[in-house]
Amino acid sequence: MHYIEDTEFIRGKVPMTKSEIRILTLTKAQIGEKDFVADIGAGTGSISIEAARIASKGYVFAVEKNPAAVKLITQNAEKFEVGNIVIINAEAPSCLKQISRIDVAIVGGSGGKIFEILDALDAKLKIGGRIVLNFITIQSLANCLEWLKYHDNYSYENIQVQITRFETVGAYDMPKSNNPVHIVTAKKINQKRCANIIRLGMRS
Amino acid sequence: MHYIEDTEFIRGKVPMTKSEIRILTLTKAQIGEKDFVADIGAGTGSISIEAARIASKGYVFAVEKNPAAVKLITQNAEKFEVGNIVIINAEAPSCLKQISRIDVAIVGGSGGKIFEILDALDAKLKIGGRIVLNFITIQSLANCLEWLKYHDNYSYENIQVQITRFETVGAYDMPKSNNPVHIVTAKKINQKRCANIIRLGMRS
Amino acid sequence: MHYIEDTEFIRGKVPMTKSEIRILTLTKAQIGEKDFVADIGAGTGSISIEAARIASKGYVFAVEKNPAAVKLITQNAEKFEVGNIVIINAEAPSCLKQISRIDVAIVGGSGGKIFEILDALDAKLKIGGRIVLNFITIQSLANCLEWLKYHDNYSYENIQVQITRFETVGAYDMPKSNNPVHIVTAKKINQKRCANIIRLGMRS
Amino acid sequence: MHYIEDTEFIRGKVPMTKSEIRILTLTKAQIGEKDFVADIGAGTGSISIEAARIASKGYVFAVEKNPAAVKLITQNAEKFEVGNIVIINAEAPSCLKQISRIDVAIVGGSGGKIFEILDALDAKLKIGGRIVLNFITIQSLANCLEWLKYHDNYSYENIQVQITRFETVGAYDMPKSNNPVHIVTAKKINQKRCANIIRLGMRS
Repeated sequence: MHYIEDTEFIRGKVPMTKSEIRILTLTKAQIGEKDFVADIGAGTGSISIEAARIASKGYVFAVEKNPAAVKLITQNAEKFEVGNIVIINAEAPSCLKQISRIDVAIVGGSGGKIFEILDALDAKLKIGGRIVLNFITIQSLANCLEWLKYHDNYSYENIQVQITRFETVGAYDMPKSNNPVHIVTAKKINQKRCANIIRLGMRS
Repeated sequence: MHYIEDTEFIRGKVPMTKSEIRILTLTKAQIGEKDFVADIGAGTGSISIEAARIASKGYVFAVEKNPAAVKLITQNAEKFEVGNIVIINAEAPSCLKQISRIDVAIVGGSGGKIFEILDALDAKLKIGGRIVLNFITIQSLANCLEWLKYHDNYSYENIQVQITRFETVGAYDMPKSNNPVHIVTAKKINQKRCANIIRLGMRS
Repeated sequence: MHYIEDTEFIRGKVPMTKSEIRILTLTKAQIGEKDFVADIGAGTGSISIEAARIASKGYVFAVEKNPAAVKLITQNAEKFEVGNIVIINAEAPSCLKQISRIDVAIVGGSGGKIFEILDALDAKLKIGGRIVLNFITIQSLANCLEWLKYHDNYSYENIQVQITRFETVGAYDMPKSNNPVHIVTAKKINQKRCANIIRLGMRS
Repeated sequence: MHYIEDTEFIRGKVPMTKSEIRILTLTKAQIGEKDFVADIGAGTGSISIEAARIASKGYVFAVEKNPAAVKLITQNAEKFEVGNIVIINAEAPSCLKQISRIDVAIVGGSGGKIFEILDALDAKLKIGGRIVLNFITIQSLANCLEWLKYHDNYSYENIQVQITRFETVGAYDMPKSNNPVHIVTAKKINQKRCANIIRLGMRS
């Protein structure tokens, strides 16, 4: 259960999921050795690289629109000698069409298109497959929960995680809080879809 | 129950207790109109000024060693037209001798001398009086709790408060967490002291 | 700044806002001596009674649908000898019509009708008036924030408060966390309304 | 990175580390395939069993004084078919003498003997070995931090983790907070010991 520390990744100015959130997200994703994993909003690639090490006989599709971030993913993939990452320098969800199959999806960022991304992932996701999402804003979280309420072929768990790191300053341990993150873990239990009519209730 | 917003105080670089912590601290202090209040580690004077408005017929003794902070307390006292604050530009606890009587004490900072400060306050505090303390570090909090365990003539409450402010960024509300603060409220229920021998167990 | 402790209120099985949340809610409401205050979802009346003590020359309209809770409000009003509470045993928002004017509104519970309640309060609220809302669920909070985004004649603050109380067990202080509560403070800065068309985007 | 859910373990009335804390604790422990792991205060054995699956060619020494808990560890070890757990039904630290070598130690409960337990673990722990501790109380945490301050041959990290689980109630997600847990991860960087004299400052 060895993992890569935050400081080991090449970062630049691109925001990165902190280690505790990364670990919980990857663990809840229950990635298998031969899985096809989609990492939406891959950022520095910290999740993609850990996922690729777990899915050693599968593939990770790292979707990231920001070219600066794409460069970091490439550099980190090289640094950690991971060969099974396919970088897709485009914006979700349109680019998801080119992925043949998805066993597990991890959504780090949705760029305000959470409904469209969930629809596109749902179209590719196998039964028993998981989507694990990280949310910072109330609005994106609420939209995801609304999507899940209308798609009762998914069971889900929703937790808020607040990590405070205590830094040693002389004889004292001083707290420094990270911002709270919601981790939503959705599992596809069958193929049944909800009627489109219901979608009228949703916010776009 | 009107209160002063953080932004209304003159601040400079001196750290200031955030409004929610200030409000809870002042409320738990149960300050009376004629009370003598000691504010240890007064900083910008935000607590002292609110306390002085409540103890309108009493006095607030603002103890602060940092001259830059003392200047801010003076400026804020002028800005909010509070005349019943006595500024003591010295370090606690030695300077507490000059205070004749204490009905309520608020400790924002202890400078690593929490045992000595509590001893000095205890010597002046009336029965039924309160000491409300804010702690950021585990060590200072633990020392305070240890002092209280050995001084069973005090009853106390200990809460941790974590405030996360959501800032509007376009269509989204983004979280920004303050660091957690412990608010300890101790009430002196009688005069009985503990034996000095017990103090040997304490850390200095 | 004296306040009533949780234990002093007559409670029964009706849920009650915990003291720290009650204090912060009341403080952010900035209630004036002559204000007309609406307390929606009054529960045990803990907020109504504190509000009535502040608005000593005004009135508090305690709106509560649950008869068992109404009985508690009456008993608590008697216990704390508060005479300026008008209990409205009905469900918001329909019953709000009978209130002539609202200077401050506090919403403890919205029963899934947050849009309708905000619309009804907005119709009565003076310019410069405040609505302070407590939320536990993501959905009600998100709906409130959406209403506020569409009503840019309100400025607002949104904080999440997490209180952990440490209980003494022998030589130890053991934590017991309350569930996190969001406190949204909205201030009406002018009378301008948003176009109804925009409302179509909303969830009902 | 598959893990066992809380509900899969046989539990009874014995308290169990919740999954997120278990996962973070195990990950920070960086257990190797051939490691000898000491699990102090093993409880239901949830940590021991996960550790035994990682240290598949090593051993886990599950130290637990409570006979009821020992029975659960045995039952869970059978259920998950783990053969490399040695159960020590005794109280730490005295029983730690019988363990020949420790590569990683996990401390879930210290029964008020944290100094003695850390001393005993330190005597067996290899250089580069890790001790990962979970703390709920301020006092035990403070004592651990004090031990670490006096043992500068250890580097450490200290985080507080607060998990809030949102349970679906009809159309809503209602929060339910777990109590905050501190996870302290100490790494032995060399063999140097501190002078005993310093220990006088410590609380026992």
